[in-house]
Amino acid sequence: MMQPIHIEHTSAPKPRPKASDIGFGKYFTDHMFILDYDDGKGWHDARIQPYQPITLDPAAKVFHYGQAIFEGLKAYRTEAGNLVLFRPEMNIKRLNRSNDRMSIPVIDEELVLEALHQLVLIDQTWIPHEPGTSLYIRPFVIATEDMLGVSPSKQYKFMIIMSPVGAYYDEGVKPISIYVESEFVRAVAGGVGHVKTAGNYAAGLKAQEGATLQGCAQVLWLDGVHRKYVEEVGSMNVFFHLGDKIVTPALTGGLLPGITRDSVIHLLRYWGLKVEERLFSIDELVQVQKDGNLKEMFGTGTAAVISPVGSLVWKGETLTIGDGSIGELAAHLYETITGIQTGRIEDPFGWRVVLK
Amino acid sequence: MMQPIHIEHTSAPKPRPKASDIGFGKYFTDHMFILDYDDGKGWHDARIQPYQPITLDPAAKVFHYGQAIFEGLKAYRTEAGNLVLFRPEMNIKRLNRSNDRMSIPVIDEELVLEALHQLVLIDQTWIPHEPGTSLYIRPFVIATEDMLGVSPSKQYKFMIIMSPVGAYYDEGVKPISIYVESEFVRAVAGGVGHVKTAGNYAAGLKAQEGATLQGCAQVLWLDGVHRKYVEEVGSMNVFFHLGDKIVTPALTGGLLPGITRDSVIHLLRYWGLKVEERLFSIDELVQVQKDGNLKEMFGTGTAAVISPVGSLVWKGETLTIGDGSIGELAAHLYETITGIQTGRIEDPFGWRVVLK
Ligand SMILES: Cc1ncc(COP(=O)(O)O)c(C=O)c1O
Ligand SMILES: Cc1ncc(COP(=O)(O)O)c(C=O)c1O
Repeated sequence: MMQPIHIEHTSAPKPRPKASDIGFGKYFTDHMFILDYDDGKGWHDARIQPYQPITLDPAAKVFHYGQAIFEGLKAYRTEAGNLVLFRPEMNIKRLNRSNDRMSIPVIDEELVLEALHQLVLIDQTWIPHEPGTSLYIRPFVIATEDMLGVSPSKQYKFMIIMSPVGAYYDEGVKPISIYVESEFVRAVAGGVGHVKTAGNYAAGLKAQEGATLQGCAQVLWLDGVHRKYVEEVGSMNVFFHLGDKIVTPALTGGLLPGITRDSVIHLLRYWGLKVEERLFSIDELVQVQKDGNLKEMFGTGTAAVISPVGSLVWKGETLTIGDGSIGELAAHLYETITGIQTGRIEDPFGWRVVLK
Repeated sequence: MMQPIHIEHTSAPKPRPKASDIGFGKYFTDHMFILDYDDGKGWHDARIQPYQPITLDPAAKVFHYGQAIFEGLKAYRTEAGNLVLFRPEMNIKRLNRSNDRMSIPVIDEELVLEALHQLVLIDQTWIPHEPGTSLYIRPFVIATEDMLGVSPSKQYKFMIIMSPVGAYYDEGVKPISIYVESEFVRAVAGGVGHVKTAGNYAAGLKAQEGATLQGCAQVLWLDGVHRKYVEEVGSMNVFFHLGDKIVTPALTGGLLPGITRDSVIHLLRYWGLKVEERLFSIDELVQVQKDGNLKEMFGTGTAAVISPVGSLVWKGETLTIGDGSIGELAAHLYETITGIQTGRIEDPFGWRVVLK
């Protein structure tokens, strides 16, 4: 039987940020969910509490050995006034795949779903009303044992915090420029690139700084072994529209199996289009671009949903993709996925989970 | 000019653990060092305080994106009653190389050395007296800004905590058994394996669990590209004594430049022995073992100093190295390095830094 969730309501609700000021991940709602783990006792004491700081010993393992994983999903307001999650079971499964890879005990999936449900409802007034806005939900696990040996922690905290997010595309979807990274590597098969562990993101910061210096918004990551197969764009999966088919890198171990990626593949096939999950090299990418066969390129992820790529910087050259506006397929995917999320259109795959 | 270190002494010194109970990294001394970083202000407010928990927002970046690095060194009691550090400037330089790779602002090296100095002196009664014991010192940096964007934190804490450690080889040096890992990869050139960032250690836990199941003490890591060149043993560098020379993996980007590794190379060359830093494949290792030419294999690191390897498990086969006791060269290195550290022998390279 699922353990109960104890609820302590805040006595001091925080002021809401102005819609224009929301941004991403800066403001947090009034409550948070916590679940503790102790060796021998398992995961215990599920509770919702007022959002508050946590106190840890300076020797807590998360600070030293990075045993930490997370997820990212959103709650949406539909036009009919419902609150929905988008495929949360996919995030919960990935959460446990990440846990397993990082030697963290897995968590009851039903309990996580129930925690998401209750927490979103408690803080539902935090979900903004403006078009394109939503509530970002961040489940995460950290190792808390205060011991410096390099071994799996005997204590953990699983927490869920939430943050209202403004419209990603405030002034319409604008294609971004991408820097093809040839010095730094994000991940390698056999490593941890296929799970959402904290260290992957720190490892990518240096390259991101380099891309910014080159005037680019994001990095295109190549694989760590051959340094030639395209893996991801920043923290997004990536798709290429070539001739009559769509290509996306296969899940070879170095990239995250994104939930938006999975949704995009489903939709494209549902529409009768040909999708290939395979190795796709930077050389092939450059060639199809030069041949005029690269119709569209876009990133996919929970934050931006679809993020069209307008240009690539590779070996000092800038390759332009499309005409500087969002491509047809990307636009259709964006409208469809956000449409399903906000209830504007029908949900043929049962992706919406209605909370109320 | 170096900023001053403000000191607040504890009013409640903790009881000391019993010598037999000390172990590694379980007990912490009475004081700790903290230095804060804020964007625009730099590193500020250097202070020594009573050892105490730290309070962070659940959105602190270290929990989510693993922006964290650390160092590990020891303070030793010499037979003459002095307190010494061993090559601390090497740790401080590596600390800043790690900072730089992880997009963390570098720290004034003189201040770090002064902090080590003052902190060890304040807690000097925590350094055990038994042979083989010492005080382990753990400098570390964590990203503390409470914001969920994937970008370098605008706030950090640099801290130093210390823990008394028991004799590593309580019952004499015993060679360990090693599992050659062929599924999981620790690091890859272009990544972060050459710096001491937290995520590297979480990434290695799963393989370590596998090695334990195989009855082995540690993992032998192979490179992430060819899956064949030897890189490290657990969290140690590794050396092979073959015929009349000693081979150790070259610093190709996937392994940490250990300070013990550097000291071992210096000593071996000082003794007129031939040291090769180069690629060394698992195939070559198996071959020299089969040919009877592998005289010794040992790991090197601050914790164990020298850790002889007695056997290797590779593709279901167990390869024995030496006769189950510590080899001649390993023993000589162990005696020399611990001798320099504890003042038992002369210090030809100026490696000791005497604190008092
Ligand atoms: C490294 C990485 N790749 C891809 C994605 C996209 O995944 P999803 O579509 O599940 O948000 C994310 C974001 O979660 C990510 O962090
Ligand atoms: C991954 C790794 N390799 C090697 C070493 C050995 O380095 P050192 O001799 O500086 O302790 C360590 C320990 O610090 C380590 O963490």
